[in-house]
Amino acid sequence: MHEDDALLCIAASAYDADMYYVTGLLAPDAFIFFEKDGKKWIVLSDLEIERGKQAANVDEILSLSEYKERLQKQGLDYPKLIDIADCVLQDYQITRVLVPGNFAIQYADPLRERGYTVCSKEPFFETRAIKTPQEIAAIQQSQKHTERVMDDAIRILKAAEIGAHNDLYYQGQILTSEFMQRHIQIKFLELDCLAHDTIVSCGDQATRPHEHGSGPLRAHQAIIIDIFPQSLTTRYFADMTRTVVKGSASEPLKRMYAVVRAGQEIAFNAIRDGVNGQEVHRQVQALFTQEGFETGVLNGIVQGFFHGTGHGVGLEIHEAPRIGNADVTLQAGNVVTVEPGLYYVGIGGVRLEDLVVVTESGCTNLTTYPKELEV
Amino acid sequence: MHEDDALLCIAASAYDADMYYVTGLLAPDAFIFFEKDGKKWIVLSDLEIERGKQAANVDEILSLSEYKERLQKQGLDYPKLIDIADCVLQDYQITRVLVPGNFAIQYADPLRERGYTVCSKEPFFETRAIKTPQEIAAIQQSQKHTERVMDDAIRILKAAEIGAHNDLYYQGQILTSEFMQRHIQIKFLELDCLAHDTIVSCGDQATRPHEHGSGPLRAHQAIIIDIFPQSLTTRYFADMTRTVVKGSASEPLKRMYAVVRAGQEIAFNAIRDGVNGQEVHRQVQALFTQEGFETGVLNGIVQGFFHGTGHGVGLEIHEAPRIGNADVTLQAGNVVTVEPGLYYVGIGGVRLEDLVVVTESGCTNLTTYPKELEV
Repeated sequence: MHEDDALLCIAASAYDADMYYVTGLLAPDAFIFFEKDGKKWIVLSDLEIERGKQAANVDEILSLSEYKERLQKQGLDYPKLIDIADCVLQDYQITRVLVPGNFAIQYADPLRERGYTVCSKEPFFETRAIKTPQEIAAIQQSQKHTERVMDDAIRILKAAEIGAHNDLYYQGQILTSEFMQRHIQIKFLELDCLAHDTIVSCGDQATRPHEHGSGPLRAHQAIIIDIFPQSLTTRYFADMTRTVVKGSASEPLKRMYAVVRAGQEIAFNAIRDGVNGQEVHRQVQALFTQEGFETGVLNGIVQGFFHGTGHGVGLEIHEAPRIGNADVTLQAGNVVTVEPGLYYVGIGGVRLEDLVVVTESGCTNLTTYPKELEV
Repeated sequence: MHEDDALLCIAASAYDADMYYVTGLLAPDAFIFFEKDGKKWIVLSDLEIERGKQAANVDEILSLSEYKERLQKQGLDYPKLIDIADCVLQDYQITRVLVPGNFAIQYADPLRERGYTVCSKEPFFETRAIKTPQEIAAIQQSQKHTERVMDDAIRILKAAEIGAHNDLYYQGQILTSEFMQRHIQIKFLELDCLAHDTIVSCGDQATRPHEHGSGPLRAHQAIIIDIFPQSLTTRYFADMTRTVVKGSASEPLKRMYAVVRAGQEIAFNAIRDGVNGQEVHRQVQALFTQEGFETGVLNGIVQGFFHGTGHGVGLEIHEAPRIGNADVTLQAGNVVTVEPGLYYVGIGGVRLEDLVVVTESGCTNLTTYPKELEV
């Protein structure tokens, strides 16, 4: 980075974590942020400007419509966002900009055509991966809500009765993935959290880790419950997975569960400031192989342990650092999931996921919810 | 576009409407899509590949991990998504790619460095703005749910009692924006819809159009309710706004309401296949000015009518075409909002929003919910 570089983002903060992180303003349409010599500006439309004055953590707010008028007086009938950006950068004598990796080509190309040097950098705000005590408190709050809702979901399974064909009945109705997903989402809303893509999947469905699950839940089969709400108050996520069986688990499933749990312990012991995420992941992989749980294509389907051990959690549900095959050094203040899993068609899927803070000497588990297979 | 160009997207379909539109697969992490000579491919990780086989509307699914292994055998220890994309494009003899406007610079730059021609195009899929009968049916379904929930919200206002300081009481509690927002979101979830950023704002808060609203709702003041859920089943949005007063509206507010309603009628009459959105917007602006409702900065705050008349709605809540200052020709099959508004500090905000389908001869209103100010 050159001394004279400025930072530039053009994005909607409601959908772009970097933009929300740096401005603190939640807006549904793209706006301009730039930073030079430690001073921060945003350019807002009339629609947002009053809200911006109240909510944005920046040094100065510029008016998009004033820039528009200026350009119109200069003969440009329909100034686009990129014309405004050009005009603003000229005003602040900025010719070189550093942008995030997801910066849109529709903005980068016109800036380059107009003579700007545009370079990208990822992660854009390195500090996003190192959580402050306030951020950890926010994640912990989301995690607390997550545990409350998980408990509620598992209580429903406990209360359910086993009927014909191993269907489950709750309050007289067949218990389905869809019922549980909706119940979980509503409980989260009552806690001012929003949960997307909640996973409650059973049997062979649960061997596809991102399958949300559908249809009746069954007794004596593994049910994966993976929930990751975002607080609507703080915008910080939490993430937790439990695997449970209503009734009796098969012996192969019990063994898988014990080995996945041991995999989590290996990761907890390996995680600390300075360790490579890849090293953590390999230790988990090695344990699974050693215990006889191979990973690879079986009968045309990928089975075993075929996802990462964990990922960062913050303003995004998947963010840096990843704990997987990539070469990434963990740092104190990272908040990461630890979520090994094993998936075999015919036996089922098992995943256990906790959320930990990386510390100088190890890690602190933010998750207190118990792990028991049969409920 | 050259004859030999291929289309390329690299994005997570859970957050990228183009990617979901073309693949029909909902995935939370970025994956590769490309299309050449009318044939469509996606490249999926082991995590998604089984789900992809079941859900994706593409001709062929390639395995990310097979490409990874190939690159690792060639000596690349940690192949990134962009290395995979490079390898896949080589396999299919693609050297020129057309990408969407939001294509990330972190993918565009390395592709160019490796010799690819990368051009962007927006809108990427022109057909997205022209809704099929199936898409219109999906939007209409979301709209039906929206009206049901709006009715539920307005019933609460009707049932509320007016207490001291014009506070409203519902079931013994002070009625707040937050209570109403949560109630609306939960009702939507019960209908398998997700509503973000629900607006229930009162008094001067409602003069800031994107303000969500907070604190007690009051009698005799304008309350703007703007709700725009996404169906979790179809992924299509709807969008509707009503402005109501619990109790008696002031005379200035009643006049504003009548003029905003007349603004909507002007737009309904102007909208048809072939008309310029700008022309529609100007007619609404002209009416407001003619009726004495000026737009501009008053006491340091932007007031009047300072947003567009409407926007497209589909897989995104704000999509093409816009009805505002830009030069955009409306086409039969567009689904757009018609949402003029007037905002004056001290009087309040009024916005009325319906959802219409553009037709050859005019437009068809998908909204049937009544408009009455005092409830």
